[in-house]
Amino acid sequence: MRTVIKNGRIVTASDDFEGDIYIEDGIIREIGVGLKKDSDILVDAKGKIVVPGGVDAHTHFNLHTGSAAARDDFYTGTVAAACGGTTCIIDHMGFGPSGCRLDHQLNVYHGYAKGNAVVDYSFHGVVQHVDESILNQLIEMISFHGIPSFKIYMTYDYRVKDDDALRFMERLKGLGGITAVHAENHEIINYLRYRFVKEGKTSPLYHALSRPKECEGEAINRIIEIAKMAGDAPLYIVHLTTSVGLKYIEEARDCGQSVYAETCPQYLLLSEEKYREDNNEGLKYIMSPPLRSKGDNESLWNGIQRGYIQVIATDHCPFHFETDKQLGRDDFTKCPNGAPGVEERMPLIFSEGVVKGRISINKFVEVCCTNPAKIFGLYPKKGTIAPGSDGDIVIIDPDRRVKLTQGILHSNVDYTAYEGFELKGYPVMTISRGEIIAKDYEFVGEKGRGRFIKRKTVFNNKHFCL
Amino acid sequence: MRTVIKNGRIVTASDDFEGDIYIEDGIIREIGVGLKKDSDILVDAKGKIVVPGGVDAHTHFNLHTGSAAARDDFYTGTVAAACGGTTCIIDHMGFGPSGCRLDHQLNVYHGYAKGNAVVDYSFHGVVQHVDESILNQLIEMISFHGIPSFKIYMTYDYRVKDDDALRFMERLKGLGGITAVHAENHEIINYLRYRFVKEGKTSPLYHALSRPKECEGEAINRIIEIAKMAGDAPLYIVHLTTSVGLKYIEEARDCGQSVYAETCPQYLLLSEEKYREDNNEGLKYIMSPPLRSKGDNESLWNGIQRGYIQVIATDHCPFHFETDKQLGRDDFTKCPNGAPGVEERMPLIFSEGVVKGRISINKFVEVCCTNPAKIFGLYPKKGTIAPGSDGDIVIIDPDRRVKLTQGILHSNVDYTAYEGFELKGYPVMTISRGEIIAKDYEFVGEKGRGRFIKRKTVFNNKHFCL
Amino acid sequence: MRTVIKNGRIVTASDDFEGDIYIEDGIIREIGVGLKKDSDILVDAKGKIVVPGGVDAHTHFNLHTGSAAARDDFYTGTVAAACGGTTCIIDHMGFGPSGCRLDHQLNVYHGYAKGNAVVDYSFHGVVQHVDESILNQLIEMISFHGIPSFKIYMTYDYRVKDDDALRFMERLKGLGGITAVHAENHEIINYLRYRFVKEGKTSPLYHALSRPKECEGEAINRIIEIAKMAGDAPLYIVHLTTSVGLKYIEEARDCGQSVYAETCPQYLLLSEEKYREDNNEGLKYIMSPPLRSKGDNESLWNGIQRGYIQVIATDHCPFHFETDKQLGRDDFTKCPNGAPGVEERMPLIFSEGVVKGRISINKFVEVCCTNPAKIFGLYPKKGTIAPGSDGDIVIIDPDRRVKLTQGILHSNVDYTAYEGFELKGYPVMTISRGEIIAKDYEFVGEKGRGRFIKRKTVFNNKHFCL
Amino acid sequence: MRTVIKNGRIVTASDDFEGDIYIEDGIIREIGVGLKKDSDILVDAKGKIVVPGGVDAHTHFNLHTGSAAARDDFYTGTVAAACGGTTCIIDHMGFGPSGCRLDHQLNVYHGYAKGNAVVDYSFHGVVQHVDESILNQLIEMISFHGIPSFKIYMTYDYRVKDDDALRFMERLKGLGGITAVHAENHEIINYLRYRFVKEGKTSPLYHALSRPKECEGEAINRIIEIAKMAGDAPLYIVHLTTSVGLKYIEEARDCGQSVYAETCPQYLLLSEEKYREDNNEGLKYIMSPPLRSKGDNESLWNGIQRGYIQVIATDHCPFHFETDKQLGRDDFTKCPNGAPGVEERMPLIFSEGVVKGRISINKFVEVCCTNPAKIFGLYPKKGTIAPGSDGDIVIIDPDRRVKLTQGILHSNVDYTAYEGFELKGYPVMTISRGEIIAKDYEFVGEKGRGRFIKRKTVFNNKHFCL
Repeated sequence: MRTVIKNGRIVTASDDFEGDIYIEDGIIREIGVGLKKDSDILVDAKGKIVVPGGVDAHTHFNLHTGSAAARDDFYTGTVAAACGGTTCIIDHMGFGPSGCRLDHQLNVYHGYAKGNAVVDYSFHGVVQHVDESILNQLIEMISFHGIPSFKIYMTYDYRVKDDDALRFMERLKGLGGITAVHAENHEIINYLRYRFVKEGKTSPLYHALSRPKECEGEAINRIIEIAKMAGDAPLYIVHLTTSVGLKYIEEARDCGQSVYAETCPQYLLLSEEKYREDNNEGLKYIMSPPLRSKGDNESLWNGIQRGYIQVIATDHCPFHFETDKQLGRDDFTKCPNGAPGVEERMPLIFSEGVVKGRISINKFVEVCCTNPAKIFGLYPKKGTIAPGSDGDIVIIDPDRRVKLTQGILHSNVDYTAYEGFELKGYPVMTISRGEIIAKDYEFVGEKGRGRFIKRKTVFNNKHFCL
Repeated sequence: MRTVIKNGRIVTASDDFEGDIYIEDGIIREIGVGLKKDSDILVDAKGKIVVPGGVDAHTHFNLHTGSAAARDDFYTGTVAAACGGTTCIIDHMGFGPSGCRLDHQLNVYHGYAKGNAVVDYSFHGVVQHVDESILNQLIEMISFHGIPSFKIYMTYDYRVKDDDALRFMERLKGLGGITAVHAENHEIINYLRYRFVKEGKTSPLYHALSRPKECEGEAINRIIEIAKMAGDAPLYIVHLTTSVGLKYIEEARDCGQSVYAETCPQYLLLSEEKYREDNNEGLKYIMSPPLRSKGDNESLWNGIQRGYIQVIATDHCPFHFETDKQLGRDDFTKCPNGAPGVEERMPLIFSEGVVKGRISINKFVEVCCTNPAKIFGLYPKKGTIAPGSDGDIVIIDPDRRVKLTQGILHSNVDYTAYEGFELKGYPVMTISRGEIIAKDYEFVGEKGRGRFIKRKTVFNNKHFCL
Repeated sequence: MRTVIKNGRIVTASDDFEGDIYIEDGIIREIGVGLKKDSDILVDAKGKIVVPGGVDAHTHFNLHTGSAAARDDFYTGTVAAACGGTTCIIDHMGFGPSGCRLDHQLNVYHGYAKGNAVVDYSFHGVVQHVDESILNQLIEMISFHGIPSFKIYMTYDYRVKDDDALRFMERLKGLGGITAVHAENHEIINYLRYRFVKEGKTSPLYHALSRPKECEGEAINRIIEIAKMAGDAPLYIVHLTTSVGLKYIEEARDCGQSVYAETCPQYLLLSEEKYREDNNEGLKYIMSPPLRSKGDNESLWNGIQRGYIQVIATDHCPFHFETDKQLGRDDFTKCPNGAPGVEERMPLIFSEGVVKGRISINKFVEVCCTNPAKIFGLYPKKGTIAPGSDGDIVIIDPDRRVKLTQGILHSNVDYTAYEGFELKGYPVMTISRGEIIAKDYEFVGEKGRGRFIKRKTVFNNKHFCL
Repeated sequence: MRTVIKNGRIVTASDDFEGDIYIEDGIIREIGVGLKKDSDILVDAKGKIVVPGGVDAHTHFNLHTGSAAARDDFYTGTVAAACGGTTCIIDHMGFGPSGCRLDHQLNVYHGYAKGNAVVDYSFHGVVQHVDESILNQLIEMISFHGIPSFKIYMTYDYRVKDDDALRFMERLKGLGGITAVHAENHEIINYLRYRFVKEGKTSPLYHALSRPKECEGEAINRIIEIAKMAGDAPLYIVHLTTSVGLKYIEEARDCGQSVYAETCPQYLLLSEEKYREDNNEGLKYIMSPPLRSKGDNESLWNGIQRGYIQVIATDHCPFHFETDKQLGRDDFTKCPNGAPGVEERMPLIFSEGVVKGRISINKFVEVCCTNPAKIFGLYPKKGTIAPGSDGDIVIIDPDRRVKLTQGILHSNVDYTAYEGFELKGYPVMTISRGEIIAKDYEFVGEKGRGRFIKRKTVFNNKHFCL
């Protein structure tokens, strides 16, 4: 199949020029001006902005928690992704049975995704415990299965102790992989949750108060110091929310440590006032870490522009407001944690970031597409527009005005956290491996067309640097 | 004319992929894999690295100082540039007669360059005094002549007072231009030079001691504060040499101020020990600012990788060691200031930076090619490899080992400051607008083929951000 | 004469205890509990706080400026000082005729003070120009006249160039003295003043706008770098007003440089909103540097408590609001610069600082009494309560509530900048060399009883450290 | 009993003057010049320096560990203290039986000290677990027993979890007390110790390597964040050893948090090279945290002078080198942790600190005497020379040269960590409550004369500030 995109303003992480793109058999073959090519599909991108397909490095599809199951599976979730301009996701797999092997969940998730996903995908490994057996499985996960990134949690039941984090990071570093970390102080949060409930403080606001910013700050600093002790093991902080956490990341990066940070649109655009809304509206925003102050929002935007935060992902994990979230109506600790976002990410960051002048358009591509692909070993297949790369392209109409509302979105859920946001600029076409899969906010592709991508290690390359 | 470069590893400021480039009539028309194109010139870049032609934002050709004339004119200078992988230079014009208009020197320099330059070129305006007349000439210089950047000096006879700097920067900001500044404290340096000579301290070492790092530090901080008072006027610090200066730049950028910084290979790779060498070898390194400590070298590399320094240029300004430089044999103040470097820049930064793991290869392209083009309004014509850009390409053989020595270099001068450096990786072909102009260290192009480029303003674009 | 102060809460820069003080012939002879001593004067300090007499290191008595003369001479000024709890002042002498010797103004000021001053006093030398002759006079000023501190100005007509500042500081350092500096960027301020007037922007607000905080910031940083080049010459920044200036001082002190800073009550308690008051009330606050933001106020309090600011002085320099200040009614540049404060300092800092919990009571004594005495060579004669020290004592009634108003103050001027401040705690008795000179806000001493004090150098003592 | 000390140079935390001291019935009654007093004991301090008796806030007497008992009991330990110029100690009590009440160890330690101690003493409470019962005991410990400070450990068997630390600090803050913390990351250290032993890395050097500086750094930052969440609960970091830990303390104090830090002479004067000495000499220095780098030494001195470290204590905990320490000969984990120091502290800090110009003499008094007394509620009874204070005085001969060697010291142990240090200045007389208890390095007092001191809370006083 041959696809040609003509006359667009093509933007990459560093470039910005007018041109055409020729995709053949799913691969970008040529980029040029005045390309003369036969095509099966011809897209006129005149007046439009042409960027690489978005890469969302943090989703939770088919997630089963104790009290509720996230509402998106790999089909509905990737449809939403596609409609929002994201052509590749890396899912953080949920926990498996206690003591299971690293490939246990991988097999489960392959089952979930295959035949369902409509965009390409990979998974981050998940670490529930650390022992010699687990460490010995890493090489197979990386070399055979193509999974070079693993997540550890510093909180929740399957949290990993500091020494196990050290052991794990040491081993993974030796293999060129990277450790993603959910960094919050478990004991303090646990104590505060219990205390608030005992004191009858059960409204959504107490969700935020039970996870003070210092809990994120100290945990980020702790894991940074542990990574340093592991010989500067590559470290990726997921969903950074606070300026205090950012400060520690800045200090480490200024000293040359290999620390990377991800934040999410909700931590850039929403703030803790949401928890005070009437009618338990605050339940919509119960997620961990919680929303923070407007000052934190600003710090994070600043951290992106200055290069200290490399990735914007979503932590997409949707629950129905009218049913699931109401479990927390009388007790925030009962509310399933998470919110949708995989579809809103690219439009939000373009409109609120680029159009409002907070970040440059190159930076938008860098943090939404290129950097996640580079850090997690998908590049140059994903994350850029270059010959040889997959034909994953998003066309943004910079003049399109959209008022965000649940009605136009595709996640299998009954609300959006960004209801009423007035956006300028919106993805109007999503192309995956040369195929148009979404157009004017609707999915037009085929179920199950998404492919699993084996990822590479990059941190054993001494020249890798972001 | 049609030029095809096949099978290279193409590297830009953010990308890195295998592919072919097709250049027609001097313009890159297509980039692709397996391009099938007729060509007049066919270059096989298999196993080679293909990067954008270098942009040197700081040269001094045809410079006449009081005591001596720099040895390179626009012919010999640009031949050296071409052989070293630089396809575009922006020359800092010398001073004209006292009180002259801004276009006086422009006319003189057009005369110097036309018919001589072998790579494309532009000029930075030079400001010798500030008054309403000068300020009113800015719009013509920018809009008609295509000169949107101007340099002011805080030292030397034509230094500009702080209030004139403020007035100038305010006005230029309004027009979207950028002010480049040579930042050193004039009074202190003048006093120390005079004192050292009076005390009989006249060896090259005293050149360095008469320009202490605090003189650069305070001047950089002063001009940063002035730029802030000018309403965050865009500011470009030329030839940054010290960690103290870098500290002020970091603080300003962290606060969101539009401050940019340039350093040069000599400040990254050579240090003040050079001034202590026997036989007045130190005269070779008499330049302003002087070489600094090894600690400063390291700080500057670090500042590049972290994005606080955006440009590596050269301040190329060569004098014969055996004749010109000997004027300073008995008194360092008599020695003409400057050293060659336009040819050495790209090889040195590739070998010492990329190969030694100090910076990534994308960063190399960014600081040597893309950023100077973006900041000074040459982009996307220059500074990248993209359809529509000029066909300025450099092919680096990553395995070529070269011992730097004056014999293989082309500047019209009798030494190189980097004699004996063992390099790994070297530009083996330079292509300018599709034409091979240097090959295997020799110039093979035509005299006078270089073209003047009218530059654009970029700082009136609120989305510009580096 | 024998004076006994019984049962007070005696507070020094580090101590806090109940006790009695015995003063004989003007000197503190004993401090104890239950002292049994005959006395000519017996003061019962039960329930009161007994602190060392205040030392104001920055006054301007008998100052003649071009347009107006400051309203306090050494009699009225020191009466005000005494009533406010200050028992020693160091006056910054005004400029003498162009080219005059360092001792010219000293002789003039000895004439002003002798027979008039009612508290003890010294003078800071003033430097109008720098040459070998002036530098050679330093030793006599220090050793014979007892003047080890000298002020240079970076603005105004008699400003000292950077190289002269370097020469001066080098020489003075060698003699153990300290250089006090008024740090503002002359050229910028001059330009902005001229421009505002030309644009018809002549209200008091433009006084502040013509001296932006960056002007102080850069000048402070500049003189700090110059002091460093002078071999870490002791440097004292007078009237610090901004957080940006403080930042540079912090960085220098953190690196071990001998930099000291003084601020004044007006910069801690008043802010730039004052310049917007109706009826030209803003003229009352025209002083240089001007009042700053409330954020700056807070930063300075914080700088005091953390030890980065060592001294609170006043820059007392009063002009009549109804007459003198009205010269600026139509043009702020015509308004004489300065405001009263010598009497308000101790009550303000006690009430606003100690009572409000911004600083500890020991810190109050440290910055208002002890540190200025130590830095300027008056200690231990002045600045503390210790055997052998002068019997300079202030008794504060911590429960006394006073609403500040011009009516109760003694400066020869028609307003106070702190009208209406509600204070808790006030000096109710001032004792100088054992003699009660003020009581319940009234002066009860004798005209001319103040003595000139020859000061010592302290910076040639390697153990001196503050 | 009446004691008079004549003609000394009396130095406090802020003052420095010549004078006499009169002590009656153990209390300083008068300080003066030319005091005429009858006396039972007359000390001529002409040419000597007279400072307050030292307060060592961190000793371990009568400590029983698993493998060995510290060699000093309250008699030998306080004799050593007295001979070294320390007149008051606060002992950190060892752990009691699991689950015991807070007063359990207090009773045990009263038993140890009574009849044995020769200088005055108090104890820090020790917290082995946290529950409501323990928290409810705090008020009795503080109000009835006079123990307002408690130590928690972040490592060792009785470490306290983060949430328990939070609960504890919240409660203690409400009562005006202060929490002292041994901050090291337990899990990492435990893992590294185990790993090194398994790998056969058992020499003393591995003691240091098993406790990397990051373990202290992260733990200090963690407990600082916890203290902040506890509403800015007063926090005291014991035995700070690293610049990274200091950095976190600085950042917290700069933000106004009530964090205090203690270091010890060994962390200022000895470095990790000691662990590489032949013949297992390194065992002498096995203590936790371990010795660090020379760079850390310098950072800590700098932190003292700038006020970020308030206390120098000792962590005195001696074991015989020839017997006890040899338990670690084949395995560093078997070596009892600790070293002597209570006697060496004052001489070392005077000679290495004051005489070598690293800190001022006032700072010496402040950190060795006054600050520990203030922070821990002993002031003004202890820690200064003022009427009403205890007559605890140390007389230092500034000209006395002493080569430190075990032979002249009094701890019940066979080595000193400072063997061979050449000191200038040494305490030649120690006076406790007016009584001479040590003279010319020998104890001349009576066994059991020391008294327990009930301490006060200070942190419920909003004006307390250090």
